Parts: sequence; structure tokens; C-alpha cells
Amino acid sequence: MENKKEKLERIKDKDTVKLIEESYITVIAGPCAIESWEQLDAIAKVVKDLGLSFIRGGAYKPRTSPYSFQGLGEKGLKYLKEINVKYGLKTVTEVTNTENVDIIADNVDVLQIGTRNMSNFELLKKVGRVANERNKKVLLKRGWASSIKEWLLAVEYITLRGNTEVVLCERGIRTFETDTRFTLDLSAVPVIKKLSKLPIIVDPSHAVGQSDLVIPMSR
Amino acid sequence: MENKKEKLERIKDKDTVKLIEESYITVIAGPCAIESWEQLDAIAKVVKDLGLSFIRGGAYKPRTSPYSFQGLGEKGLKYLKEINVKYGLKTVTEVTNTENVDIIADNVDVLQIGTRNMSNFELLKKVGRVANERNKKVLLKRGWASSIKEWLLAVEYITLRGNTEVVLCERGIRTFETDTRFTLDLSAVPVIKKLSKLPIIVDPSHAVGQSDLVIPMSR
Amino acid sequence: MENKKEKLERIKDKDTVKLIEESYITVIAGPCAIESWEQLDAIAKVVKDLGLSFIRGGAYKPRTSPYSFQGLGEKGLKYLKEINVKYGLKTVTEVTNTENVDIIADNVDVLQIGTRNMSNFELLKKVGRVANERNKKVLLKRGWASSIKEWLLAVEYITLRGNTEVVLCERGIRTFETDTRFTLDLSAVPVIKKLSKLPIIVDPSHAVGQSDLVIPMSR
Amino acid sequence: MENKKEKLERIKDKDTVKLIEESYITVIAGPCAIESWEQLDAIAKVVKDLGLSFIRGGAYKPRTSPYSFQGLGEKGLKYLKEINVKYGLKTVTEVTNTENVDIIADNVDVLQIGTRNMSNFELLKKVGRVANERNKKVLLKRGWASSIKEWLLAVEYITLRGNTEVVLCERGIRTFETDTRFTLDLSAVPVIKKLSKLPIIVDPSHAVGQSDLVIPMSR
Repeated sequence: MENKKEKLERIKDKDTVKLIEESYITVIAGPCAIESWEQLDAIAKVVKDLGLSFIRGGAYKPRTSPYSFQGLGEKGLKYLKEINVKYGLKTVTEVTNTENVDIIADNVDVLQIGTRNMSNFELLKKVGRVANERNKKVLLKRGWASSIKEWLLAVEYITLRGNTEVVLCERGIRTFETDTRFTLDLSAVPVIKKLSKLPIIVDPSHAVGQSDLVIPMSR
Repeated sequence: MENKKEKLERIKDKDTVKLIEESYITVIAGPCAIESWEQLDAIAKVVKDLGLSFIRGGAYKPRTSPYSFQGLGEKGLKYLKEINVKYGLKTVTEVTNTENVDIIADNVDVLQIGTRNMSNFELLKKVGRVANERNKKVLLKRGWASSIKEWLLAVEYITLRGNTEVVLCERGIRTFETDTRFTLDLSAVPVIKKLSKLPIIVDPSHAVGQSDLVIPMSR
Repeated sequence: MENKKEKLERIKDKDTVKLIEESYITVIAGPCAIESWEQLDAIAKVVKDLGLSFIRGGAYKPRTSPYSFQGLGEKGLKYLKEINVKYGLKTVTEVTNTENVDIIADNVDVLQIGTRNMSNFELLKKVGRVANERNKKVLLKRGWASSIKEWLLAVEYITLRGNTEVVLCERGIRTFETDTRFTLDLSAVPVIKKLSKLPIIVDPSHAVGQSDLVIPMSR
Repeated sequence: MENKKEKLERIKDKDTVKLIEESYITVIAGPCAIESWEQLDAIAKVVKDLGLSFIRGGAYKPRTSPYSFQGLGEKGLKYLKEINVKYGLKTVTEVTNTENVDIIADNVDVLQIGTRNMSNFELLKKVGRVANERNKKVLLKRGWASSIKEWLLAVEYITLRGNTEVVLCERGIRTFETDTRFTLDLSAVPVIKKLSKLPIIVDPSHAVGQSDLVIPMSR
């Protein structure tokens, strides 16, 4: 395990997500944004060597500033498709608009809804419909200022359209504290487990916002 | 003025927005959701009698619960168009998805972006493009957990596409206080005026969330 | 009025508090901390010339850092007493500990409980007892992370000991927004008026935390 | 370990605090408020049997409502002293006012400063002075709306008076989420470890506010 961790730390790893499945822990690793084929392929090799099953990578990036890199778009999706074929890894990417849901479903396995879109209800409905028809899973991140009740209602927008499998992801909420970018609300995990049967994973990386704090928060 | 207020209070008025323009105050009034032609027409008559210039009404409603009324959609837009012709009132309605921006621009004057979509960047880009091409104004509500800096960056997503006129609307932020639904952040007004040249209006109704608190907060 | 404002702005005025009394507005003005007799006397002259009735000044200062100036203590109280005699102004100062309540009551008219001490229940009880016995008023600032319900319960700690007159002061709550030091929760005013008969005033200066934003927020 | 946990759960255990010391975990257990000698003695027996070293119990209780039980006061302190003699357990209790610091130091080993008093600077100074003179440890809980920087400055108020040993306790911050009473900010732990050498423990019980959520959050 330590060897794996060291390896993982050697690659550019802005975004690792722990998936708690029954008794063992699965890690969803990968770059925040796909920057090139070479970058994604190099990370995929490491992910595969680590024995992990999932790789994530952003093709459409929601950015606070319009002047930040907005993602490779369709080219990024093609790279994810090739990675899936080459390594047998399941792929995860973020949908950002009703108009890119279909093309994303053509290319990846898990449709991720990001924190900024948790209350984008038109997107939730579209993702629910497409995921149901095409047998995709959905990863629904918590809105950074959404209550647990609102989060569970967002799930219902998705599952209205059929028995789509939704996995929740706690990624931190916005509070007055500024020493971390967001406050990871780990208490949400037992609350969600009490209120629903949905699987829930935790993304410790966006909350702390500094790479040297990711490992301590993952323990 | 008192007579006007009394009249205004007699109608179903869930959502009044004050528009501060130079030295005088303009009020954008109207129903939260358009429910029928009769309802909208009755309110429009009062709005016109009050000497106001704008009417708002929701045709596509973003709702926390999928089981709440989702709006009349295109039929609501047609009603707004007819109201515009019949009374000469300028119309305001909310866009909720890139796919309904064009049809909304066909029918109303001001494209409103709601609090849940302030960081829906694909929507901001589309609205900016359409507003610029078709000479529409944009009303950008503040995300309930968005900082002032993020709000001003959201404006840049819209204005990237041309010299679109954007009006900001402070409508309350999410805090620990639960006696009001949101906390109206009036301090944002002087901060915005200091940082930008953008006009800013205030929506006191969603923040307090109870009709008997709207009038005191509007003074 | 404009003349008065200009005068007021010429003095070092970190902390002005508006007291809304029935139909007219009373201003409590004065320095955040009393620094010297000369400073307090100069401000008192202006306050008197403006026709105001109250002057405030801190003698015991609660400071986030132990390395900041902690106030003049008893010497500051003596200055306030002399100002009261010389100008006939009513004086307001902050109590910070059960052990300085008596000596403060010996020297000033209004005992102020600051935001950090709103839930210092031993202090509330002591202030209630002393204010009742010696006929002093109490100015209770809202804790920066206290709900309206907790604020009203804090009042009950004071009034348990008798019919002490308590005036509330909204001074801003802590939220995620960092462009202002605190978020002034003006909605608290109508909520308090609905839930209680207590007078409530607003301190716009600490919330915004920058002198150029105080005047716009006071309108 | 499981046996110990089961035992622990059988007693009235509103407040357990985990103390992470180097490689092993110490638990500070005990009742929120001391209600009687019989109650405290029964809990102390279990705590001793579990092999734990510390027992906590409130004698002076800061309560949001003045109508709630305010604690046994001096009688509670005497009980703690007797427990210390009878079982050899180290005792922890909360100081709430400068005037009860000395008598608490006469009777217990660790002076706890509660969340409401983290910015009660007169209390911090007094506790620092007494702890230093009488060789007591201090347990400083985080203010529920205090930033990490403010927390570390509060420590300096205590240590100004000498080399007092201070242990920090993260107990949850106030956020918009209402499904838990407070949001446990576990990210504060690595941040504190990065910024200081101070030991830090976590109190998962007050944050979640419901007994069935304490065990999951302690893992």
C-alpha cells in the first residue's frame, strides 16, 4: 500500500477520490483536466499498475474565470475512450451542459455532475434520462452550499427517469474558514447513510486545496 | 405611494425587485411563476397602473424538489410576449438551460440568470452570445454561496461575447442563520459599486422568505 | 445634516452606531478605543456640537491578538466620567469580564456587551444584576455567529435579574464572503421587531471593515 | 477494543473526546454535566475499567438558555477531586469565568476552555496565569465561528504568561448545514499540525449532535 501511495504521489495527481465499497476502498484517480494524450496515457499506466479500476479526467472544465483553460472538449473524450480500450479502466468525466451529455455518454462510463451543477435541474433531468437509456452510472458531487436535503432531492431529479445508479461525492462546503478552500463535511457521510441507501465517496483534495494536506485528510 | 403599495400588496406578489437607476427607484414586479393567462394579465394591469416599466414572471422554474411545479414553459413565454404587446411593459424571465435561451430571447426583453445558475458557465456563455446578437439585457443574480469576486467573473463570461448590458441582483447568501431563508448581503452593493460600473439591484423577497418581512427590508 | 456629516468624518470615527428611536435617528459616536484625554475630549466636543446625546469609547478592548493595544482600563473610565460631567453626554463602554462590571457601572451610563461576549453567560448574569441594582442600560451586540434565537435567549440571562432595559445591536455575522469583514444582517431587524419589543440599532462600521464603505451602508 | 466500546455505549456518554498522542489514541470520556455523586462514580468506574486515564465532567455549564440546568458548581468540583483520589483518573472540567478559575485549579488537573469562551480574552489570560503557576494543562476548544488563525492567537493569550501546555480541541464550526448541529472541521487537524507544534484532539459528539452519529464519525 505504501508503495502504491508513493507511486501515486509521483504523478500529477490533483484529484483523487476514495470510493468506499463494502469492505474495501477503491480510489478514483486521474488528472483534474486532460491536457494531452501523453499526460493521460502516463497517468493511466500508473493507475493500472496500482490495480485501480477507475480513471477520471476532465474534458469540459467549469472554471471560475473565463480566462482559465476550459478543457480539450471532444478531443479529451476520445482520449478517455482510447484509454478505456487500451487499459480496461472505467472512465469518469464531468458533464457541464445538457448539450454535451450525449457525446459524453458515447465515450465514457460514469457521468460526473460537478459541485456547480448540483442544482442545474435541466442537466440533472437530461443526465438521468441518458444514464437510464444507456446504462451509465452517475457521480453526483455535493453543491458547495447545498444542504444534505437538497442533495438528496437532486438525486431524485436523476432517478425520476428510471433506476439509474447514483454515487454521491462529498467534496467540501463553503464556510467562513479560509485556511482551507472548502470545509470537508465528513459528518455528511453518516447522515447520508442514515437517510438513504446511496453509496457515498469523499473527495479530500478540493476541500483542502493544497497538495500537502491531501494525504493527511485521506486517512 | 401608499396607495400604490396597498394595491401591490393586494395582488399575489411573491417577488418584487427594486431597480435603483440614477436618482429614482424602479420596481420590477410580477409573479414568481406564471400560472395562467388570467393571473399574469391581472398582475400586469396593476403593474401598468402603478406606472412601472417592467414585469417579471417565471416560465421555466428551477425547483429544489422535482415534485414542485416546474413552470408553464413555452406557453408562459407566449403570455409574456402578449403582455408586452398589450401593455408596453418590458418583460423579464429566467433562462435555465442553453437549450431554452433562443426561444426565450424570441419572446422577452431581459434574460434573467438565477442564483443556482450563476456558475453554470455554459449557460453564461450562451446567454452572452444571444444577448449580444439580439440586443437583450441580462439580469445576473448572485449565487447564494458565491463571493463578490466570483460574481464579477461570472459577468465576464457573459460580456466576453460583446458589449452586453448586465444588471446585477443581490438576493441573499446562505449563512448559518435560519430565521430568514437567506441573509441579504446589502454590503455587497457598495462593494460592487466600488469594484465595477455595473448597475446593481436588490431582491429583498427571497432572502427573508416570509411575505411580512418584505416591506420592512425594502425601506 | 450634511454639515454634521462632514464634521463627523473629519474626526477619527471608527465606530458609529445608529440608534433608531421611534421616528428619529440617534447616533452613538465615538472612538473605538480611548487613546488619551485629548483625543476623547476633542471627539466629545464634536459629538456635542452635532447635538448628539451619546458618546462611546472603549476602555477595555477585547483584541484578537494579545499584542494589540488592550485599552487604557480604569484611566479610560475616569475620562468617560469627566466627559459626562463636562458635556452632559451619556457614556457607553464595553464590559469584558465580571470583575470590571462594578467599576464600569461607577463611571458610565450604558454597559455594552461585545460580540465575543454575547454567550459569556456569567458576564450576562453579572451585568443584569448590576444594571438592575444601579439603573444602567445595557447594549447587547449580536455574537458574530449567533442566531437570532440565541441572541434573544442571551437577553433573558440579563433580564432574569430584573427589568433591565436592553438595546440590541446588529453588527454583522460571519459568512463565507471575505470582501467585507462581516456580513451585516439587516434582515435581523424586522425579525427581531416581529419576535420581541426590544429596541434594535445597527452598527454598519465593523461589518464592512473599511471606512469608505461605512457611509453608503448607513443610508 | 470492541468490548470496551460496548461498555462505553452502555453508560450515559454524551461527550467523548479522542486524544491522539503520538502513536496511540487516548479517549477523554465522561458526562457532559455532573448530575450527582452516584452518576459520576458509576461512569468513573467504567472509565477506569476501560483503562483510560482521563475523566471529564462539567460543574459550571454554559447554557444557551438560562432556564437549562447550570451545573452543580463547587459541589461538582469536590466530586471530581474525590474521583481523582479514588480512581487515580486525571480530571478535566470547564472554566467559565475568571472568578472560578482558582477554585477549579484547586480541584482538577486540566482546565477546559469551551467554544463560547475561546475569545473571552480576560478568561484566557487568567487561565494562562493560573495554569502556569500551578502546573495545570489547558484544553482549548475552538470557537464555533473562529478561524484557525484566531484559534492560534487565543493560544498566545494563554502562553503569554509562561510555558503552559495547551491542547487544542476541534469540536465543529457553524455552517449553513442544519442536519448536524455543527460541521466537524477535520481539515483543521492537518492545518494546525502544519502551522504549530500543538497537540490537537477531536470532539465528534457536539458536532453531530445525535448519539447515533458519534460512533461513525469517530472512526
